[in-house]
Amino acid sequence: MNNAPTAANTGQTNLTDNASTDIAKVMRALATNARSAAAILANNITDAKNMACREAALALGRDTNLLLTANAKDATAAETAGLSGPMLDRLKLDPVRIAAMANSLIAIADLPDPVGQVMAEWDRPNGLSISRVRVPLGVIGIIYESRPNVTADAGALCLKSGNAAILRPGSESIHSSRAIHHCLVQGLTAAGLPETAIQIVPTTDRAAVGCLLTMPDLIDIIVPRGGKGLIERVQNESKIPVISHLDGICHVYADRGADTTKAREILLNSKMRRPGICGATETLLVDAALADEALPQMINDLITAGCEVRGDATTQNMDARVTAATEEDWKTEYLDAIISVRVVEGVEGAIAHIAEHGSQHTDTIVTEDGETAARFLREVDSAIVMHNASTQFADGGEFGMGAEMGISTGRLHARGPVGVEQLTTFKYVVQGNGQTRP
Amino acid sequence: MNNAPTAANTGQTNLTDNASTDIAKVMRALATNARSAAAILANNITDAKNMACREAALALGRDTNLLLTANAKDATAAETAGLSGPMLDRLKLDPVRIAAMANSLIAIADLPDPVGQVMAEWDRPNGLSISRVRVPLGVIGIIYESRPNVTADAGALCLKSGNAAILRPGSESIHSSRAIHHCLVQGLTAAGLPETAIQIVPTTDRAAVGCLLTMPDLIDIIVPRGGKGLIERVQNESKIPVISHLDGICHVYADRGADTTKAREILLNSKMRRPGICGATETLLVDAALADEALPQMINDLITAGCEVRGDATTQNMDARVTAATEEDWKTEYLDAIISVRVVEGVEGAIAHIAEHGSQHTDTIVTEDGETAARFLREVDSAIVMHNASTQFADGGEFGMGAEMGISTGRLHARGPVGVEQLTTFKYVVQGNGQTRP
Repeated sequence: MNNAPTAANTGQTNLTDNASTDIAKVMRALATNARSAAAILANNITDAKNMACREAALALGRDTNLLLTANAKDATAAETAGLSGPMLDRLKLDPVRIAAMANSLIAIADLPDPVGQVMAEWDRPNGLSISRVRVPLGVIGIIYESRPNVTADAGALCLKSGNAAILRPGSESIHSSRAIHHCLVQGLTAAGLPETAIQIVPTTDRAAVGCLLTMPDLIDIIVPRGGKGLIERVQNESKIPVISHLDGICHVYADRGADTTKAREILLNSKMRRPGICGATETLLVDAALADEALPQMINDLITAGCEVRGDATTQNMDARVTAATEEDWKTEYLDAIISVRVVEGVEGAIAHIAEHGSQHTDTIVTEDGETAARFLREVDSAIVMHNASTQFADGGEFGMGAEMGISTGRLHARGPVGVEQLTTFKYVVQGNGQTRP
Repeated sequence: MNNAPTAANTGQTNLTDNASTDIAKVMRALATNARSAAAILANNITDAKNMACREAALALGRDTNLLLTANAKDATAAETAGLSGPMLDRLKLDPVRIAAMANSLIAIADLPDPVGQVMAEWDRPNGLSISRVRVPLGVIGIIYESRPNVTADAGALCLKSGNAAILRPGSESIHSSRAIHHCLVQGLTAAGLPETAIQIVPTTDRAAVGCLLTMPDLIDIIVPRGGKGLIERVQNESKIPVISHLDGICHVYADRGADTTKAREILLNSKMRRPGICGATETLLVDAALADEALPQMINDLITAGCEVRGDATTQNMDARVTAATEEDWKTEYLDAIISVRVVEGVEGAIAHIAEHGSQHTDTIVTEDGETAARFLREVDSAIVMHNASTQFADGGEFGMGAEMGISTGRLHARGPVGVEQLTTFKYVVQGNGQTRP
């Protein structure tokens, strides 16, 4: 019972949800603590950081019953509040999911430490030696919804990259998140690191989010993870740079040069492997020169797999089960077993459609024609462009980057999967022997 | 005379300063044109981009008289408005400065093209081949004050990095900037590139700045160059990410392990070579263990060179000419022949002072002690940290990066000198042969 994650034994300021305490003051104290912790985390402490992750994984195992009890509270509240099926499912923990969280922490411990890595070095004619060295960003605020495992992943990714983390889970997962956070704190303590390296906001009052977004002197970056509403609020209100993931409107383009079998397999996997992830395909574009040969089979594959197909006129003519796609469909992220299908004039038509309707996330071309593929890869302006591969590979783990904070659809700093390297910045180190500038 | 930079022959929407035209509409059209140009610039067109820079350099030579006439208008207006000495000096063009601008354009043409560079590539066990490839950011808005040469430098740096540029010069340099812009347009035309690759805002109405800052769908990044007031306004109002340069409060720390001669030379150069640049030192920190031996000479060197010295009590006791430094001095960027001096307890004291008062720009340690130097380089959290070298080397050119847009004091995306590489982002290119995700 002494493992119970109360405010008192996690070093958190004690603040119950409806307390009249000045939230701004509490949040400022939290961020000040984070800034102090960040100075310690910026040092060369690879072993301690890895030990903290591994000890936290052990704590998750030890505390499994506490975690399940806390999660049951969240689940009951969610059911009472009428939360829907998939939302409820995302919230729930079981021993398998807890073990997966622990494994993820161990995988993060096993990653190379990005801090101190020399990214480039060169000498100047005057004898100065210059290197660009990775350093942590500093303090990262993570604002997220429902999935309690984000607490473990985000906390450990920040720690591994030398950053102090301030976690702000959604109220729907608050008990689970606090229990998981308590395991992270056990890891930090066992490794001799400050408990304030990973803090959790001690209130679910939404005013706390506003505070987080407006302390640019104490917080270096904000990472929102959740639905569109959350991300838009954060982008609008934040006085701090935001790394965020908006829509994943991903496309499969089947070119006239495609191997039809590959095209069918890639399409089915891109759409139906897991329709709810951001790398799932939402729109199929088919070259007019390939449509007669391949599109009927593709439609049949999709419908057989349980996918609703909404198409343009040509597509509708090929199969009576296809309903009409509207303009809205081309810019919709279904995250569900629904696909929109359009016949386009070659790679040029595909590139134009993606430029107009895509979300610069992930798009793939299926073709055996190298030149056409090269054009698609060059001209489609997305974080990830693929040739003859499923869009469902859009994932930090699949890229070999280890766990990820998400896929950034922004163009600055981090684009695509956000792993530990993307949570760092760099400094220039200049070594001289007395040089002065003429 | 057909070279005269009128709105009509530069492809600009015709809008005089006091026109009642809807500025928002004009700015939106400008940005839409920039977006179209950016799509063309993103291609592999190294030769055309370089030709445009070289032809623009030639145009600057041909148009020297036009440039001088335009500049004289600005100078007269500035004098009438009572602009001060250094401001006025920064504004003025002469044949030598025009030739320097042209040389800068040629130097940018000579830089390697960052677009298409493969930053990293690796294979996955499933046979997928992944590479990270540099691509342009897109459309860059540059808002600047007084120095007309920014028009040439910023325009060419954006072009070289494959970005479309929207330039918004200050009203004080508007005639000069328009004339320089006209030379850039001549370069673009000669190279067969769209004139809209580098556009200049056709009004000095400040409302145009507000428009630039609020079109995140059409502009990818904003770079302000100018005084604190401008940069704060941009940071507060912008809905678009900003790369900006705030203060350069740079430090020289003379350690107990310093070679006194090196320390004196580095100090004098860091402060007095050009006191007005952002890499100029503003504060000298001297190890208490070195002060008796070296500080009196250092003070004398500075005062002899025409520098005002403001010091703490110890420093004042060493030389009657030293006036008292206040708390305000430690956080002041003089950009002038003034220095603040403080005696600190070893490298730890120096690191603590810089953490509290520095601006994360450039700081140098002078010491022969490798361990102490390593600690300073590791623990000082600045964009550029130096050992036994003058802070005046904080410059993209001195780093071998070619011309620069400035020195970024932010932590995200670009830190330190902002050259052509820093004006790019990247995409992941994934090559497969039919892989689907299990």
